[in-house]
Amino acid sequence: MAVKLNGNYQNLEESYLFAEIARRIRKWQADHPDKAEQLIRMGIGDVTRPLPEAVVNAMVSASQELGRAESFRGYGPEQGYDFLKEAIQRYYARYAVELDLHEIFISDGAKSDLGNILDLFDKDNVVMVTDPVYPVYVDTNQMDGRKIVFKTASEENGFLPMPAKEDHADLIYLCSPNNPTGAVYDREMLKQWVAFARENHAVILFDAAYECFVTGDLPHSIYEIPGAKEVAIEFCSFSKKAGFTGTRCGYTIVPKELVIDGIPVNPMWLRRQTTKFNGVSYVTQRGAEAVFTAEGEKQIQENIDYYRENAAIITDTLDELGIYYTGGKNSPYIWLKCPGNLDSWSFFDKLLNEACVVGTPGAGFGKAGESFFRLTAFSTHENTREAMRRFKELCK
Amino acid sequence: MAVKLNGNYQNLEESYLFAEIARRIRKWQADHPDKAEQLIRMGIGDVTRPLPEAVVNAMVSASQELGRAESFRGYGPEQGYDFLKEAIQRYYARYAVELDLHEIFISDGAKSDLGNILDLFDKDNVVMVTDPVYPVYVDTNQMDGRKIVFKTASEENGFLPMPAKEDHADLIYLCSPNNPTGAVYDREMLKQWVAFARENHAVILFDAAYECFVTGDLPHSIYEIPGAKEVAIEFCSFSKKAGFTGTRCGYTIVPKELVIDGIPVNPMWLRRQTTKFNGVSYVTQRGAEAVFTAEGEKQIQENIDYYRENAAIITDTLDELGIYYTGGKNSPYIWLKCPGNLDSWSFFDKLLNEACVVGTPGAGFGKAGESFFRLTAFSTHENTREAMRRFKELCK
Repeated sequence: MAVKLNGNYQNLEESYLFAEIARRIRKWQADHPDKAEQLIRMGIGDVTRPLPEAVVNAMVSASQELGRAESFRGYGPEQGYDFLKEAIQRYYARYAVELDLHEIFISDGAKSDLGNILDLFDKDNVVMVTDPVYPVYVDTNQMDGRKIVFKTASEENGFLPMPAKEDHADLIYLCSPNNPTGAVYDREMLKQWVAFARENHAVILFDAAYECFVTGDLPHSIYEIPGAKEVAIEFCSFSKKAGFTGTRCGYTIVPKELVIDGIPVNPMWLRRQTTKFNGVSYVTQRGAEAVFTAEGEKQIQENIDYYRENAAIITDTLDELGIYYTGGKNSPYIWLKCPGNLDSWSFFDKLLNEACVVGTPGAGFGKAGESFFRLTAFSTHENTREAMRRFKELCK
Repeated sequence: MAVKLNGNYQNLEESYLFAEIARRIRKWQADHPDKAEQLIRMGIGDVTRPLPEAVVNAMVSASQELGRAESFRGYGPEQGYDFLKEAIQRYYARYAVELDLHEIFISDGAKSDLGNILDLFDKDNVVMVTDPVYPVYVDTNQMDGRKIVFKTASEENGFLPMPAKEDHADLIYLCSPNNPTGAVYDREMLKQWVAFARENHAVILFDAAYECFVTGDLPHSIYEIPGAKEVAIEFCSFSKKAGFTGTRCGYTIVPKELVIDGIPVNPMWLRRQTTKFNGVSYVTQRGAEAVFTAEGEKQIQENIDYYRENAAIITDTLDELGIYYTGGKNSPYIWLKCPGNLDSWSFFDKLLNEACVVGTPGAGFGKAGESFFRLTAFSTHENTREAMRRFKELCK
């Protein structure tokens, strides 16, 4: 007898996407040392604007609090402090979603909880993801050996695939606004997904990490759909909303109405988190709380508007050129059809070589991403404008 | 067909220990409103001294850095920044343990990684824990449905159980200095455990969360034992060392020499962390880095010495009374035999009712904890002295 590893890890595919992009950039830089300064990166999925002042002030003051005996705090509640959960509760109330505090769990980011939530589910469940897909949904389930079915997103369905009668899945990942396509489900579409989940006794894992980019009547939360609390867990993040990609805070909603085979899921998640997690840094939670103050909201809105303006620069160019795309209006991602019928890696090379602009080939997000390309709105106005000027030049 | 939950959660035992302690204290407070102010809590496993100034200053300055465009940082490496990994690498070098940077993974705490590491191992492995035990080792394995065998710690083996020839296990949890007993394995004992793991093709999960309390020649790290790198993963934490219980930072060492069935474990853990984790807050990592500066080390040493003095107040009293105990010398925990042959809950009640002092009944940590009791060194000098004065009075 001997210790045995989890064999599923051997079935994981290596993720070559960003490594391959880096390799091609390095080669290009070596071949074109004179052009190095012209390179504009439009592939980044990370924010670039600094943390809002209100957040910084809250974190500075919380750090100092921990340095004084009378205000020091040790272990906090694993599920997060009430001060932050209450701020999130009020935020959801704006969209007429009522949450109990014990339905809100503060996390160190949506990515952690999207993976960890699988601890609660049997390995035999069938998982449905859309293609193209945020690779984490696929990899985390392959680590557990679950069967994965792909629901194809395409130009035909506006990159918003809908369930069909013959479909079957136990766990359904929906990401809206979507990474990588930027497409957003409307209320009617989400109603159909909720109905499908209810009929199939499935659970929707709803990734709302980009909800802050949503405008108009589009839903911010799956719980805006009646009946969703009985079939959905929602994941959200301060990463894109408030520049927390390096500060690490998010939250997960596990409604008390979610009951499977008579077993409520909320206490299971509480048990998982109290056993395998020790809560988010107090300083970070105070920073996240400041996001919801009047000052904080004004400051994060300025950043979101800044990125939105970049997105508009990109979509205006694509509109002018008559190139098909999704996203950009309610999302920091713009997902475009490669001009000239190029496949996504060929277009990557062309854009790099002829315009010194880097984006992300759609094929890296799944089969259905082939011949599509992702640009992001997280650069500066100056670089975004210059990149799109060159893009236009290239497409002439 | 329908979604299925992980059925193992239904086999978890509710942890009543701290809830039951809280219930008994509430009842006592209701029955003795006049004595409420006399209550001294000696059961807490949380630090009470504020964060060292060097750490606070580093966190304040890192927070401000994130507020300026030119020094803003987004996503960091999931496995942690080199600046912190290098500080840890230098710390291990003091004990003649050489680590590569890629063997060090920064975490949000030992508890998270102790649970998450199990992702890498098959459900069929047999797990060995010592009894009494830190409940997390048991619960996290029950969540996966692994078989658990208990190795009894007792007065006979000084609460330091050793492996026997006939023992078998695939995953072995060792915690030294131990929670809850405070007992510390010496070099010779750890050599035997390493030899046992090597012969049995087992992996040791070594919890070094309390290593900062170790003195003299006792090992701080399992890797001080030759050959341990091939069979052990080590977990450590800034929680007790530097007051990070609410700030959340730790680290996990996965040596490149740990290879199972030809598969190196280090890249599996990297894959797990890059897929299900997004790194520790930049601000927290800067705070942790400051722990290793000359100023930071001096300040954390003052706090550790403060707790050590409390431990000495407790052990001096027990020595005087001739009560058997482990810990206290190289640990913030003191594990004592209940005076008067009482069982641990009876002694809890007696200590509360007659001395207004709260501790933790040993039975809460496992069968072998019955008739033992845990006191901690995390209170103030004043309270510790007063508690032990009353304890002595009680035992007269």
